Amino acid sequence: MLRRVIFAPDSFKGTLSSPEICAAYQRALHSVYPEATGVFLPIADGGEGTVDCFLAACGGERVTLAVSGPFGEKTPSFYGLLNEGKTAVIETAAAAGLPLVGEQKNPELATTYGVGELIRDAVSRGATEVILGLGGSATNDGGTGMAASLGVSFRNREGQEFTPVGKTLIQIESIDTRKAKNLLQDIRITAMCDVTNPLCGEQGAAAVYAPQKGADSDMIRRLDNGLAHLADIAARAGTDLRNVPGTGAAGGMGFGVSVLLEGQLQSGIDVMLDTTGFDRQLDGTDLVLTGEGRVDGQSVQGKAVAGVARRAAGRGVPTVVIAGDIGPGAEALYSLGVAGILSTNRIAAPYDIQRKRAAVDIEATAETLFRLCRFFQRQRR
Amino acid sequence: MLRRVIFAPDSFKGTLSSPEICAAYQRALHSVYPEATGVFLPIADGGEGTVDCFLAACGGERVTLAVSGPFGEKTPSFYGLLNEGKTAVIETAAAAGLPLVGEQKNPELATTYGVGELIRDAVSRGATEVILGLGGSATNDGGTGMAASLGVSFRNREGQEFTPVGKTLIQIESIDTRKAKNLLQDIRITAMCDVTNPLCGEQGAAAVYAPQKGADSDMIRRLDNGLAHLADIAARAGTDLRNVPGTGAAGGMGFGVSVLLEGQLQSGIDVMLDTTGFDRQLDGTDLVLTGEGRVDGQSVQGKAVAGVARRAAGRGVPTVVIAGDIGPGAEALYSLGVAGILSTNRIAAPYDIQRKRAAVDIEATAETLFRLCRFFQRQRR
Repeated sequence: MLRRVIFAPDSFKGTLSSPEICAAYQRALHSVYPEATGVFLPIADGGEGTVDCFLAACGGERVTLAVSGPFGEKTPSFYGLLNEGKTAVIETAAAAGLPLVGEQKNPELATTYGVGELIRDAVSRGATEVILGLGGSATNDGGTGMAASLGVSFRNREGQEFTPVGKTLIQIESIDTRKAKNLLQDIRITAMCDVTNPLCGEQGAAAVYAPQKGADSDMIRRLDNGLAHLADIAARAGTDLRNVPGTGAAGGMGFGVSVLLEGQLQSGIDVMLDTTGFDRQLDGTDLVLTGEGRVDGQSVQGKAVAGVARRAAGRGVPTVVIAGDIGPGAEALYSLGVAGILSTNRIAAPYDIQRKRAAVDIEATAETLFRLCRFFQRQRR
Repeated sequence: MLRRVIFAPDSFKGTLSSPEICAAYQRALHSVYPEATGVFLPIADGGEGTVDCFLAACGGERVTLAVSGPFGEKTPSFYGLLNEGKTAVIETAAAAGLPLVGEQKNPELATTYGVGELIRDAVSRGATEVILGLGGSATNDGGTGMAASLGVSFRNREGQEFTPVGKTLIQIESIDTRKAKNLLQDIRITAMCDVTNPLCGEQGAAAVYAPQKGADSDMIRRLDNGLAHLADIAARAGTDLRNVPGTGAAGGMGFGVSVLLEGQLQSGIDVMLDTTGFDRQLDGTDLVLTGEGRVDGQSVQGKAVAGVARRAAGRGVPTVVIAGDIGPGAEALYSLGVAGILSTNRIAAPYDIQRKRAAVDIEATAETLFRLCRFFQRQRR
């Protein structure tokens, strides 16, 4: 008997969101085991869809409000409030994301100011914990826009206060974080961060991520200089954190969170699984069903599926993976306690055809799994 | 525990033969359950590969010899001897098949004479049962070539004995089967026949199958007239069987077997499963693993997978289907006792890519099945 199954899929990028996949799993479970409980714990890494995953897993409120967009224009945005309003979940992309700028990409001008506004709104409503997803930003401002919006004061050599952007980081002469510290003194800020890039240099925010945000090589050099200058100024007040892995995430938002706001960087999947009480939810669970658009030999080092499987195995619960593509070396996942890996591809056809069938095929694949389970568990051992 | 698994796949046409698929299943079974027994009962419908399926299932001897090919030239051929030489399995295609004629297709001239030579050889070695697969013929001679080779005498209006071909069926004035009856008096001949076409007319051998053998519409008409004439002459000696379903199989071989040689037409899958003792093999079996290049809503009416699943369900043994493509309506197979249907497509890619990966992917898919089985059976019910 399957009595209780946890659904903890990642999104299938470009195809279905994690909550949509949970819903497909649920339909399949109920068609085979009408009495069984399906627990929705969709997972996300801090990018688009993160708020909806938390809301699907924990319940809560989706707050909508207008904030400054990537270029300062008023933009409709949102965040999630969980845990009776004590925990806010915010996506950087919801106020400073690439989809908001369309073809007008310019990481020298884009700001994270609106992200700070989202945090301020959540704090004003009583949130004491802020979980910040970093994925998909259009910015390279080192998180200074966000920080400015929360009261951090940046001044230039003339002593004038200003809100830096990527292009004007180089003009910062002093930083005063006292006002922000006061505002955030009882607030815990945690950024979901799964990249290990330092703030600047060859593996830094500008060199690695600015090209996809519209930077050419000259601009990359200027942006990198700006981030290095920001780190120089910040280092005067204390330790130099520019080489801490993850400070280069989201155009330097990792740096902004940890240095300017004194928050924490943590593995996105761990933040997600801890906040949703994944380990506790494993009690009495017969099976964990996870999934991802593609698994292969890299997935063992990956965050989503491997993180879920490891925790489940730690409590003796088997995990089954339903993936779009199963690439070379995926069987390495078996070493993490994965019971089986099923592909959603039910016909021989390329991706552009498969993705249109995905919702139906994911459900059918999960149904096959549950049917096999029913047959095998009924058999004499 | 899986202790005993029957492997009964059809071939994946153009990709892997059924015995090759059994071998992939076996590798997967042994990687998960090293102590388990895999029973090879690959299935075939009478077409190419039928002899090898019987030999893989029953053991026996593959006899090779030269016989008359489709146009009378000496051609290397073969058949199988099972059951201590008592049962011969012969493919029509091995002496009169389309692959033997290449681009030189001509169903007015092609003969089944060599098929008769194969039967004669088997009988001379002591076989008392002949199983004849009908698929893939290049002929339209109503089985007269085969019959002539076994002693049936055909004479024209001048009283001259001759061996008819499609073009000269019309010249038959009398048929004498006494010599053949004598030769075959203690021999049971069974044709594996899964088509229901009558000998002639709109659904007859010439109209339906001659086009793929190279006939144009004029030739089809002449061939159809020839078959009707053959039936007229044969009817003088007894019952008119031209409308019996299956007599139109393989250019009228169905008619030749049943009328000229007094053999039986039987469903190919039933002949296969009966001869290999499938029902008996189900005793003590935990799982039947079958498969086909594609399953869909039609598969419930189909012969291979449905035939296997029905018999297994009759003895309470679940069947799992591993298919290339899973088309619309395939879930109808569940009503036959199928526990699950898995696709071998592990990546989103078209058929020309999938087929090159098939051996590896079929094994990996079977391994996933066995791993799931192991996990689920270990769990508390």
